[in-house]
Amino acid sequence: MASQHSFQTPTGTRDLYPLDAAKRRFITESWRQTSLRHGFEEVDGPTFEHLELYTVKSGEGIISELFSFQRAGGEKTYALRPEFTPTLARLFASKAGSLPKPSRWFTAGPFFRAERPQRGRLREFLQWNADIIGDPSPTADAEVIGCCVGLLESMGLTPTHCRVRISHRGLMKDLSLHCGLPEDKLDAWFAYLDGEAKRSGPENDAFLVHRGVPLFVREKFDAIIEKAKNVTDPDNFTPESIGLKSETLEQHRAVLLELRAMGLLAWCQPPLDLRVVRGLAYYTGMVFEVHEISGGERALAGGGRYDNLIELFGGPSTPAVGFGMGDVVLSLVLQDNALLPGDEEMLERAGLRPDVFVISNGTPQADAAVQPLLAFLRRHQLHARRTGKTTKNIGKLLHDASNQRARVAIILESDQVGQMKDMSSGTQIAINLREVLGHLATLGIRGIAKIEK
Amino acid sequence: MASQHSFQTPTGTRDLYPLDAAKRRFITESWRQTSLRHGFEEVDGPTFEHLELYTVKSGEGIISELFSFQRAGGEKTYALRPEFTPTLARLFASKAGSLPKPSRWFTAGPFFRAERPQRGRLREFLQWNADIIGDPSPTADAEVIGCCVGLLESMGLTPTHCRVRISHRGLMKDLSLHCGLPEDKLDAWFAYLDGEAKRSGPENDAFLVHRGVPLFVREKFDAIIEKAKNVTDPDNFTPESIGLKSETLEQHRAVLLELRAMGLLAWCQPPLDLRVVRGLAYYTGMVFEVHEISGGERALAGGGRYDNLIELFGGPSTPAVGFGMGDVVLSLVLQDNALLPGDEEMLERAGLRPDVFVISNGTPQADAAVQPLLAFLRRHQLHARRTGKTTKNIGKLLHDASNQRARVAIILESDQVGQMKDMSSGTQIAINLREVLGHLATLGIRGIAKIEK
Repeated sequence: MASQHSFQTPTGTRDLYPLDAAKRRFITESWRQTSLRHGFEEVDGPTFEHLELYTVKSGEGIISELFSFQRAGGEKTYALRPEFTPTLARLFASKAGSLPKPSRWFTAGPFFRAERPQRGRLREFLQWNADIIGDPSPTADAEVIGCCVGLLESMGLTPTHCRVRISHRGLMKDLSLHCGLPEDKLDAWFAYLDGEAKRSGPENDAFLVHRGVPLFVREKFDAIIEKAKNVTDPDNFTPESIGLKSETLEQHRAVLLELRAMGLLAWCQPPLDLRVVRGLAYYTGMVFEVHEISGGERALAGGGRYDNLIELFGGPSTPAVGFGMGDVVLSLVLQDNALLPGDEEMLERAGLRPDVFVISNGTPQADAAVQPLLAFLRRHQLHARRTGKTTKNIGKLLHDASNQRARVAIILESDQVGQMKDMSSGTQIAINLREVLGHLATLGIRGIAKIEK
Repeated sequence: MASQHSFQTPTGTRDLYPLDAAKRRFITESWRQTSLRHGFEEVDGPTFEHLELYTVKSGEGIISELFSFQRAGGEKTYALRPEFTPTLARLFASKAGSLPKPSRWFTAGPFFRAERPQRGRLREFLQWNADIIGDPSPTADAEVIGCCVGLLESMGLTPTHCRVRISHRGLMKDLSLHCGLPEDKLDAWFAYLDGEAKRSGPENDAFLVHRGVPLFVREKFDAIIEKAKNVTDPDNFTPESIGLKSETLEQHRAVLLELRAMGLLAWCQPPLDLRVVRGLAYYTGMVFEVHEISGGERALAGGGRYDNLIELFGGPSTPAVGFGMGDVVLSLVLQDNALLPGDEEMLERAGLRPDVFVISNGTPQADAAVQPLLAFLRRHQLHARRTGKTTKNIGKLLHDASNQRARVAIILESDQVGQMKDMSSGTQIAINLREVLGHLATLGIRGIAKIEK
C-alpha cells in the first residue's frame, strides 16, 4: 500500500493500548485525588488558544516552539497550548469580579511542544497544574509546594528519591546586585544561571563575557551559594548567614517556616538553592523545582509565585502561585524506582476486572440466555463480560474468564438456572437466575452505585 | 491594553470553571463506567495525527473541515483529530497480530472540527467511542447498540426521550437497486438520503436530477420505507413485508433478534428506518443513530459496522462495529429534560465536598497549628481545607466551612485540643488532636484508601 508509511504515530506522541491507558489513568487519578484533598477545584480551557496569548508573555521567540495554525479561510492564528498558566490567567482575568479570592484551581490534560523529542520530553504530554490565585501569603507558597510533594508521597516517593529545590526570585535579584551585577544585566544573568548546568565551563564563561556580565559577579555569587548550602533550618537564615539583610530574605524565611510546620523541610535541602531560577520570565517571588535525586532526569515539576501575570492578561492586580508537573519524567522516575503498581494491579485499578463472566453450557436454550443475562447485569451496574471465542468447551471458557480476571463465572444451563463459580476460591453452586443478584451480593459484588437523579 | 481583545476563548471552544468541569466529569465518568460494565477497555491516540490518516478514508474534501498544520521547519502535515475511527484502525492494524480478537475498545476525549459553530456543534468537543474489533456476529452489532443505550439509561433517558434509528447499508443497497437505481448512482443516492431532511422539496428534486438519479427510484423507495415502518417486531420481517428476499434482510433481522433478547426493542421503533445512512462512506452493514424524540436536535450518537476499514489502514481484513457520542448534544438533551443533577450534587460527585475544614480560634498557638493539622489530614488521604478569608470571627469562619460544603469543622484552640463540629447535625465535641482520625472515623469519614505499592 503506497501511503502505508505515513500511518504512523506522529513523532513525539503516544498510542495508548489498554495497559498504557490504565497507567495514564493511574497518574491522572493520583493528580486529581491529591488536588482534591488539598482543596483545589478543577478548571480547564480549550486545547488551543489564540497565538497572542503565548506571545504576549513570552515574546515572538516562543512561536518556533509551538504548533500554530489557522482555520482554512480564517484570519486568526491559533496555537496548541504549550502550558496552562496563560489560560489560567485569561480565565481568572475574565471573571475576576465574581470568583472567590483566593481561588484554588487544578487542571490535568494534554499539552504540546514542537521541540525535538528526547528522554523526558515529548511533543504531546500530560501536565498537572495547581495554583492559588488571590493569596499573597507565604502559607499559599508553602501549600502549593505541599500539594506537589503530597503527590510524590502518595506515589511512594521520599526525599531519598527526589528533592525540592527552592529559591526566591527577589532574593536572587538582591543578592546579584549585592555582588555587583549591573541592574540592566539581570535578565542575562538569570538566563545564565538557568542554563549553567547544561553548558561546559568555557561555554559558561563565553556566555557571560558575550553578554557583558562581569565574571567577578559569578565568583561572589558562588561564594554566597556555598554559604547558603550550609543553612539547613530557617531559624538560621539570618542576614549574617548569607551576608545580606533584605526584605526578600524574610519572605523566603517565612515560606520555609511554613514548610517546616507542614513537615516538609526534609524534602527541601538545602532550603535555599540559589541555582534555581526557572526559565520563565513571569515569576516574581518563590520559585521551586522537583528533581530526581541523582539529577540525571529533567525536572519532575516546577513552579513559583507570579504576582503580575493576571494583570498582564487584563485582570485586576492579583497575586498567584502554582506549579506544573508532567507525566513523562514522573513515569520514568516511578519506573526506575519500581514504584509503579504491577500490570495486573494497574488493570484492576482502571476498572478492568469483570464482576461476572457469562458462559453458555452450549445448549441452544443457554446460548440464547447469554445476552439477556449480560443486559440484566449491566443494567444493575455490574461489569459483565462474555467470551469472544467460538469454542463451546467449558474448561476453555472458564480459562478465558480467568484470563480476563473475572471474579465470578456463571455457566448457564438454561434461561432459568446455571452454576455460579467464585473464580478466586473455586467454589461452585447451582443457582436460579432470578436470584442472581442476591448470590452475587453474598460474594460482595454489588456493582457500581446506580446513578440517581 | 492594545491586544486585550484577543485574550478570548477561541470561537467554538469552551472555558471550564469548577462547576463546568464538574459537569464534564459527570459525563466522562458516565461514559467510562458504562464502557467498563459492557466489557470495553480504554485506548487512546495522539490529539493530532498525520493529515493522510484522514484523507485516505474521506478524500481531500475533508481538509477544509480540519485544523491542519505543520511544525515550523517540518515537512509533515498534521491535523487535529476530527474523529477517532482512523486512529482506532491505525492502532489495531499496527499490532493486529498480538491483540485479542475480538478487542473491545473505548475512548473519550477532545475532538476538533473547523466548521462554523452552531447549536449542538462546537469546534472542540468531547466524544466517546466504543468499538468491537474482530467479531462479525450480529451479537457484536447489538452489544454496541446496547452499550450506547446503556449510557442513555444510566442518565435517566428512556424511549420517551430519544430513539435509536437503525438500518443496514447492505439492505439499503439491495432495496435501492431493486427500486431501479443504477449501481453507479449508489453514492449519490446515499448522499441524497443523508441530507434529505435538511433540504427543501425543490432542493431535493434538483439534487437527484442534477446527479442523474431517476425520480421514480425515490417514489418506489419511499413506498418501501412506509411498508417497513409498520413492522415493529423482527419476527414479522419476512421478504413479503418489504417486497424483497435478500441475505442482508436476514442480517438485519439477526441484529434485531439480539436487540429484542436484550430488551432494547422499545428503543428501536421502527426497527428498520431506511432513511438512516450515516454520511461516512466506510460503513458496510448495520448503521444507527440516536435522536432526541422530537427530531429537533442533531444526533446524540451514531455508528455502525465497518468491515473494510482496518484493512484499508494496512491491517489484516477484520470486521468491526462501533459508535461515537459527543458531549454537546447529550448535554442539551439532558438539560432540556431536567436530567442533570443539581449544582450542589454535581460538585459533590466531582469530589468537591471537603471532609474537614480547619479553623483557628485566633490565638497564635492555634494559628500556628492550622497548617500542621491540614498536612496531617491530607497525608491520611482526607480532603482538608482552610479559609481563604482574613477574618478571625469564628461564626463567619463556620459560615465559610458551610459554604464550602465541609462535612466537619475543627476549631483549633491550641496545637493540642479543639472543637469538632459535625456540620450536618450541628453536634460539637471537644477533642484531643492526637485522636482526630478516630473521631472522624466515628462520623464515617475515613478518606480515600491509601495508595499502596
